[in-house]
Amino acid sequence: MSAKIPVGVLGATGMVGQQFVRLLQGHPWFDITVLTGSERSAGKPYGEACTWVVSGEMPPALREAIIQPTTPEMDCRAVFSALPNAVAGPIEEELAAAGFAVFSKAASHRMDPDVPLLITEVNADHLALTHIQRRQRGWDQGFIITDPNCSTIGLAMALKPLHDHFGLEEVMVTTLQGLSGAGYPGVSGFDILDNVVPYIRNEEEKMEIEPLKILGRLEGEEIRPAEFTISAQCNRVNVRDGHLEAISVRLRREASAEEITEAWQAFRGLPQELGLPSAPEQPIIVRPERDRPQPRLDRDAGKGMAVTIGRLRPCPLLGWKFLALVHNTIRGAAGAAILDAELMKVQGYLD
Amino acid sequence: MSAKIPVGVLGATGMVGQQFVRLLQGHPWFDITVLTGSERSAGKPYGEACTWVVSGEMPPALREAIIQPTTPEMDCRAVFSALPNAVAGPIEEELAAAGFAVFSKAASHRMDPDVPLLITEVNADHLALTHIQRRQRGWDQGFIITDPNCSTIGLAMALKPLHDHFGLEEVMVTTLQGLSGAGYPGVSGFDILDNVVPYIRNEEEKMEIEPLKILGRLEGEEIRPAEFTISAQCNRVNVRDGHLEAISVRLRREASAEEITEAWQAFRGLPQELGLPSAPEQPIIVRPERDRPQPRLDRDAGKGMAVTIGRLRPCPLLGWKFLALVHNTIRGAAGAAILDAELMKVQGYLD
Amino acid sequence: MSAKIPVGVLGATGMVGQQFVRLLQGHPWFDITVLTGSERSAGKPYGEACTWVVSGEMPPALREAIIQPTTPEMDCRAVFSALPNAVAGPIEEELAAAGFAVFSKAASHRMDPDVPLLITEVNADHLALTHIQRRQRGWDQGFIITDPNCSTIGLAMALKPLHDHFGLEEVMVTTLQGLSGAGYPGVSGFDILDNVVPYIRNEEEKMEIEPLKILGRLEGEEIRPAEFTISAQCNRVNVRDGHLEAISVRLRREASAEEITEAWQAFRGLPQELGLPSAPEQPIIVRPERDRPQPRLDRDAGKGMAVTIGRLRPCPLLGWKFLALVHNTIRGAAGAAILDAELMKVQGYLD
Amino acid sequence: MSAKIPVGVLGATGMVGQQFVRLLQGHPWFDITVLTGSERSAGKPYGEACTWVVSGEMPPALREAIIQPTTPEMDCRAVFSALPNAVAGPIEEELAAAGFAVFSKAASHRMDPDVPLLITEVNADHLALTHIQRRQRGWDQGFIITDPNCSTIGLAMALKPLHDHFGLEEVMVTTLQGLSGAGYPGVSGFDILDNVVPYIRNEEEKMEIEPLKILGRLEGEEIRPAEFTISAQCNRVNVRDGHLEAISVRLRREASAEEITEAWQAFRGLPQELGLPSAPEQPIIVRPERDRPQPRLDRDAGKGMAVTIGRLRPCPLLGWKFLALVHNTIRGAAGAAILDAELMKVQGYLD
Repeated sequence: MSAKIPVGVLGATGMVGQQFVRLLQGHPWFDITVLTGSERSAGKPYGEACTWVVSGEMPPALREAIIQPTTPEMDCRAVFSALPNAVAGPIEEELAAAGFAVFSKAASHRMDPDVPLLITEVNADHLALTHIQRRQRGWDQGFIITDPNCSTIGLAMALKPLHDHFGLEEVMVTTLQGLSGAGYPGVSGFDILDNVVPYIRNEEEKMEIEPLKILGRLEGEEIRPAEFTISAQCNRVNVRDGHLEAISVRLRREASAEEITEAWQAFRGLPQELGLPSAPEQPIIVRPERDRPQPRLDRDAGKGMAVTIGRLRPCPLLGWKFLALVHNTIRGAAGAAILDAELMKVQGYLD
Repeated sequence: MSAKIPVGVLGATGMVGQQFVRLLQGHPWFDITVLTGSERSAGKPYGEACTWVVSGEMPPALREAIIQPTTPEMDCRAVFSALPNAVAGPIEEELAAAGFAVFSKAASHRMDPDVPLLITEVNADHLALTHIQRRQRGWDQGFIITDPNCSTIGLAMALKPLHDHFGLEEVMVTTLQGLSGAGYPGVSGFDILDNVVPYIRNEEEKMEIEPLKILGRLEGEEIRPAEFTISAQCNRVNVRDGHLEAISVRLRREASAEEITEAWQAFRGLPQELGLPSAPEQPIIVRPERDRPQPRLDRDAGKGMAVTIGRLRPCPLLGWKFLALVHNTIRGAAGAAILDAELMKVQGYLD
Repeated sequence: MSAKIPVGVLGATGMVGQQFVRLLQGHPWFDITVLTGSERSAGKPYGEACTWVVSGEMPPALREAIIQPTTPEMDCRAVFSALPNAVAGPIEEELAAAGFAVFSKAASHRMDPDVPLLITEVNADHLALTHIQRRQRGWDQGFIITDPNCSTIGLAMALKPLHDHFGLEEVMVTTLQGLSGAGYPGVSGFDILDNVVPYIRNEEEKMEIEPLKILGRLEGEEIRPAEFTISAQCNRVNVRDGHLEAISVRLRREASAEEITEAWQAFRGLPQELGLPSAPEQPIIVRPERDRPQPRLDRDAGKGMAVTIGRLRPCPLLGWKFLALVHNTIRGAAGAAILDAELMKVQGYLD
Repeated sequence: MSAKIPVGVLGATGMVGQQFVRLLQGHPWFDITVLTGSERSAGKPYGEACTWVVSGEMPPALREAIIQPTTPEMDCRAVFSALPNAVAGPIEEELAAAGFAVFSKAASHRMDPDVPLLITEVNADHLALTHIQRRQRGWDQGFIITDPNCSTIGLAMALKPLHDHFGLEEVMVTTLQGLSGAGYPGVSGFDILDNVVPYIRNEEEKMEIEPLKILGRLEGEEIRPAEFTISAQCNRVNVRDGHLEAISVRLRREASAEEITEAWQAFRGLPQELGLPSAPEQPIIVRPERDRPQPRLDRDAGKGMAVTIGRLRPCPLLGWKFLALVHNTIRGAAGAAILDAELMKVQGYLD
């Protein structure tokens, strides 16, 4: 008899879906009982329909699991959604209405006023929106929680301690993003070899708006966005995993390099306080070397759940500049949503 | 009987040295009569001492040429210096004193007040410094002209029309630079595979100061630096050739996207007017696609002598942002210096 | 008024289709009048339906050309077929029956007894099959000529001089094949980064049988296959273009390294004798360096139409081993078919 | 008080030296007390002299350890030698004479008649040579054990079960070897990007002779080499770790695919019987997929200590062909030597 909470992975055959499956393997609280996929995959065993591309092997126990269509008939309490943006919107609402706890990586509901855009260490207080959401939408047990864009997560985590301690006024960020961010098969090997593709559809738009909601303040029944300006330039580089971000910031209050570093290193959130299973010991790791973070060397820090920062130095224009690195399919996607679910479980939302 | 001007390539076995050799092959005005190298190479045939790594084959006629040490006894009128920064300083002065026209890729003399930091299309008027240089240093026929840093060249060319038409106030640039910028053998294949190295020694410092001299105004006997601020973040990516730069600018006067694009496309300099052999037809090419420039697709534009620009769009922070790409060992190094020499030849400096 | 022969490119939006278009640009004898594509592309301008990925730019004159379906109503004399194997078979027959000269890169008809599997330098005499083909199939002006598999072409060209001079008994080949061989978008960048994929569907089968037909002897109305054994292992590596092949051979007669090298270097075919426009001066180039051929350095030899060979040395097992390199989309595909057409034009087949 | 055996790592700053350090971290039986390096490194803290490039972080406890020169005064019982071949020969002899147990990755003594060329699962009985070695060389407690070449280890392990069950007559192997095999910094990133280098100095020679000694039979006081013929072609590909080998074999007795697969899967050696700490559960893993092994997916099988085999299929020339993959710096180097030491510790050689 298992007391674990039965969960489903929606869009389980894709890159992020696979990371959900991999990270939920042997999870102390959650147990995968449902895998869903597109019409093309539904009805087939997972081991046959899914080209496993994330690290390690597909969990043997799931190889024979039959992929289901995504419907309110699924037998589980919570779902992790790696559905494509194009279809996620209405399905996720339908599921929440049917009583499912929906933790979504899709972009569809991120900017809905009553939906938390959650990074557990950063804005756990936004979970209060869940009640408003249920009331307004007439939902009972169900709700929708969204994960920010993968690049946004790295940026917002790096910004959070700065915002809290010194205030943010302006942020400039240029990204060098890994291939897995484009899903699978994603970018053609022919296109990216000996090359950079300086364009990622809708990515800059997301990075310029999402952090403002995440770092916004819950006032009454809504989030009042943080008031600073972000400009983003996004590039795809020939790296498997890991989004590297070159960031410049203008702070509202003066701060020394030591104070900034201390703010990052001392940063902890609810997941650390509560000792959640997927919480990294330190959400932000500051490397002292002059040439770090590097994607291959640092993306797996904290089992892929820590953001690594380095090269803090004065910016002639905005004041300070530095680099941040996030593992885009773990902290930037599946791992983040699982951490959300862990927090909400502890807070009683999944009872 | 050849009426060509005899030239030497200093540091001919390195990456930039080889580009000099390659680009001077069959040059209508210059003829390589001297190749120099380090102590380890001197005395050996070029074909033996040099691992040819740039495109095409080593010119057969030079395979047997014996590499010389770099001394004032060399038999030529002008020299193209690809010497390492560590040794270039005093040697180049000694050569200029001995009457050589020195076109240098080394960083040693770039910021000397009486030495032009030249991009032929951008600041040909700075050549007037040559007279001051000769007078102050007591040199007769010799002089030193310097090439900017490879990343600087791409940036300064992209900025020139903006500076002229709209005025520049602030510039933010993040680079994604190719491997050849690190020379040969340069970056270890093991280090750069599936990775980005977010640090290039001294590169950010150069990019933040050199454009101000290049875009500065010659007033009396000195250059008055341009008055705007630059902040640079430099990264090495797994690309063979080509430095891609993500740039944001704040202009002094309002400008529409059309006006900016027109300023770039209409941009021409003396090399184009004079039809110099190495001059690209258009120094700046603006691509209309949403995902260009890309290093592999655009680095060879104008035989590697044109800078390619794309993705001009509003920057929420500074006003406008865009991408620029420069072939770092051609327009960003050897090709630029050869173009300098062509201009000075036409202007009578090499008589 | 143009006296050029009007030609069509079938499957013009794919990797090989694009190479046809690129190589036919400014061709002295052929003029592209038709571009065809799948249902999804038909009716659209080429510049819109085709993501141009081969080197250089799409010929401006073709950007507005409307892609047609592949039908016998096309207005041209000859067609270069880059159709997918799955559909090429019946369409190509239909076109030949309708009077078109069909030069096909598809695998469908390669092993038909009455269809030449042509490498112009190797087995031009097999063109006599064309008459048999016409007679047997009741075709009048039309015919089908096939190009071998891209890896086969490199192998068969390297083997031809050995077969002629010393006789072949056994051939072992292991390939390291570039990404463009998989078409576009082809292999996922995520899969091939930091990796090798040791499997290419149907490739080993083709390499083990096609050379026997190519090097076979025309006896009466049929080709008698060459009598030697080939074993092939095929791997995909992270290289853009170029198939490298590590080959061991057992010869029937004793031969010295000098004799073998001489056989390769002296090798010429009809294209060289006739000075055909696309013929490389030397079909086989032997490099003396100990570490060549290398894909990036040697694939463009002879404008991509020459096969480069190196490292001939004794094989303890079969007698001799060496490496051969072929540009898979030029000599190994589009360029080969164009050379076929040039030869047949000169021989009057296209009148 | 630690009962662990004190060991030294010779050449600890290089790629293989670092793997020794990494794998010996927390080892149950061995404790690193000495790190040695070249003159340039000696006297410096390990954390300063060594650019750590293998996975994970440098063990914090060793960061301050001072690098020593390699001398008989070192304070340890056994040494793992990652010395360059050029210097390893005489130093290793000197150390063995002084009483050290020397486990060497260097090539210097591999073919000495009285030195075991050991793969613990394959030829543990060759350890008897140690006694002969001591007697002949007049050594007391010391001895030299050598590790084969990294590519040889993968090949010899794959061949061992075939040799035992069916007899070997002929072996053809073409390798696709990762960058770490060339040490650090090793191959230039500029050279290997979009390329293959079909030459590795002395590698083919080693692969053609070493397996014959390894699979040879100890007769009286010497090894009688196995009697079959090997031909090798070695290539460097743009892969970080992992040597992939395309192999064809002619067996002496007929065997079915099932029998061969069974021989591989059932294969175990002393390390497995004895449950040595570094022994993989299964020395050989056979993958059923049609496109495996792949370097990135399979190199870490058995913590890098297992050889992965796949694609067994008939070879028209020799009978059978297949692929094998070995992690070159773990099973192919440091891990293999540590396993040697574990076995000899259990057998009492290190008392």
